[in-house]
Amino acid sequence: MPHQLLILSRNADAYRELVEAARLPDLRITSAATASAVEPAAAAADVVLGEPSLVREVLPHLGNLQWVQATWAGVEPLLDPALRRNYTLTNARGVFGSLMSEYVFGYLLAYERKIFEKRASQLAGKWDPAHPGSLRGKRIGLLGVGSIGAALARTAKHFDMHVKGYTRGSRDCPDVDEYFHGDRAAFAAELDYLVSIVPNTAATVRLVDATLLAALPPRAVFVNPGRGHVVDEAALADALQSGRLAGAVLDVFQQEPLPPDHVFWRTPNVLITSHTAAISFPKDIAPVFIENYRRLVAGEPLKYRVDFEAGY
Amino acid sequence: MPHQLLILSRNADAYRELVEAARLPDLRITSAATASAVEPAAAAADVVLGEPSLVREVLPHLGNLQWVQATWAGVEPLLDPALRRNYTLTNARGVFGSLMSEYVFGYLLAYERKIFEKRASQLAGKWDPAHPGSLRGKRIGLLGVGSIGAALARTAKHFDMHVKGYTRGSRDCPDVDEYFHGDRAAFAAELDYLVSIVPNTAATVRLVDATLLAALPPRAVFVNPGRGHVVDEAALADALQSGRLAGAVLDVFQQEPLPPDHVFWRTPNVLITSHTAAISFPKDIAPVFIENYRRLVAGEPLKYRVDFEAGY
Repeated sequence: MPHQLLILSRNADAYRELVEAARLPDLRITSAATASAVEPAAAAADVVLGEPSLVREVLPHLGNLQWVQATWAGVEPLLDPALRRNYTLTNARGVFGSLMSEYVFGYLLAYERKIFEKRASQLAGKWDPAHPGSLRGKRIGLLGVGSIGAALARTAKHFDMHVKGYTRGSRDCPDVDEYFHGDRAAFAAELDYLVSIVPNTAATVRLVDATLLAALPPRAVFVNPGRGHVVDEAALADALQSGRLAGAVLDVFQQEPLPPDHVFWRTPNVLITSHTAAISFPKDIAPVFIENYRRLVAGEPLKYRVDFEAGY
Repeated sequence: MPHQLLILSRNADAYRELVEAARLPDLRITSAATASAVEPAAAAADVVLGEPSLVREVLPHLGNLQWVQATWAGVEPLLDPALRRNYTLTNARGVFGSLMSEYVFGYLLAYERKIFEKRASQLAGKWDPAHPGSLRGKRIGLLGVGSIGAALARTAKHFDMHVKGYTRGSRDCPDVDEYFHGDRAAFAAELDYLVSIVPNTAATVRLVDATLLAALPPRAVFVNPGRGHVVDEAALADALQSGRLAGAVLDVFQQEPLPPDHVFWRTPNVLITSHTAAISFPKDIAPVFIENYRRLVAGEPLKYRVDFEAGY
């Protein structure tokens, strides 16, 4: 019996083209770019490939639903306990490491190379021979060492940095020099850069709080391309305003878009990147769906299955 | 018979401390931060560790000179045919690869991640979800593949780029995907980034001219942390002003500091970094001298010897 796939994404056309090109067996496809554009016939879909926020809207209407492949890493919109959970949810993993690495090290190098300061000198018509810094020998702390953390650790070692990793218990990334579990102060000590890439779970809410921030040296820069709920935003703004922290590069926030009156817009030494650190490009995500569909047809377990309770 | 070392550098104190800490045999040391501060007794020096521009000033007075270890990679001040050449000249090599890599990829990532545009949006109080680009799959062309080019190629492969190399004949870097010799148009075709790291020799003067620039796609960005004489500056300004080239990141120029009336100050899409791409840090350079001094004492050939005719 053929499977009926609903593609539900702002990039529906691109996903459809990529999935059709794979010539998957026994698959009928419908697609829509918004929840309101989903045709009634699509309610028969047993498989969905889509953005979690859009999938959430049509979830009640999908009577035959067996499996949702999310196009994002974050599946918060589908974790609301009020929503049904009688289907298999898989998310996008393993594809964001290189993008996250370009984001994080782009900004780390911007700091070290004084890219903004050099630009300001140039606009003032000023030859500026001020010496840059270097990543070599600097200390980076990774809050969370999953597949993204491992990619960051690999790039950090490429630039000869010292890598500290904070996890609940895992210690399996060969590019992490020192592991910490539970003792946030020891983890934060002497860091030049703190990067948060933990998922949004009950255990990670406000993990970056006043206590952790106070354990960082004043020269440290905090980078958050992960999840907004990990940060106590008031404590972070306070640390930056008082000079107890040198800077922050923030991609995600408790509320997005960041409200116009939010303190971060006027906090010194904050760089705001508007949730663009790791974009889900169809050419990266479609292969995740295609591989999982082949597993489904072959009766094999799907990859990247989300535990609704754990939240990742 | 002991050797007499003259350290002549703006960082003379740092060099002296590092050299003294190595407890080299049979070595007496004098040091000065400017040529005019060199004491008369220093004229007896047979060994000099110093900045080429300062060494040039004292060259006529050093009757016993046997060897100069330059603290820079570039030794142009000592290559003037009017100057004496009856001594061994060695330069600094092998230490700039990682700094150059941080410089080049710092700016490549600034382009891809739209770091300046995101900052401008932030200053305007605007949430800016414009998608970034990625280095993955992009093409970088290295004009010159010595030790610095090899370091850049290794970082380019780390970021999954395609690497084209232009050399006179060498093809020995495993991280270069395609080599070119002589055919600059084939080398330049389809490049996203062109990086010049060739030394300043007769063969490299104006290698980046209107012909090479015309062979680049309009999306390309030129990065020059190498030598200023490699570039036809008028042709580069023209390509940028007419939109035939997307941008340029320039660290070195025909005249430095860049004169206040130079066209580059008012050329769009130029970033000027004021000859800071690869700084000679004493902690990096002192070990080069120390190793070479041990070779001198042991009667072994010195490393990184400069050919006065070839210019490198």
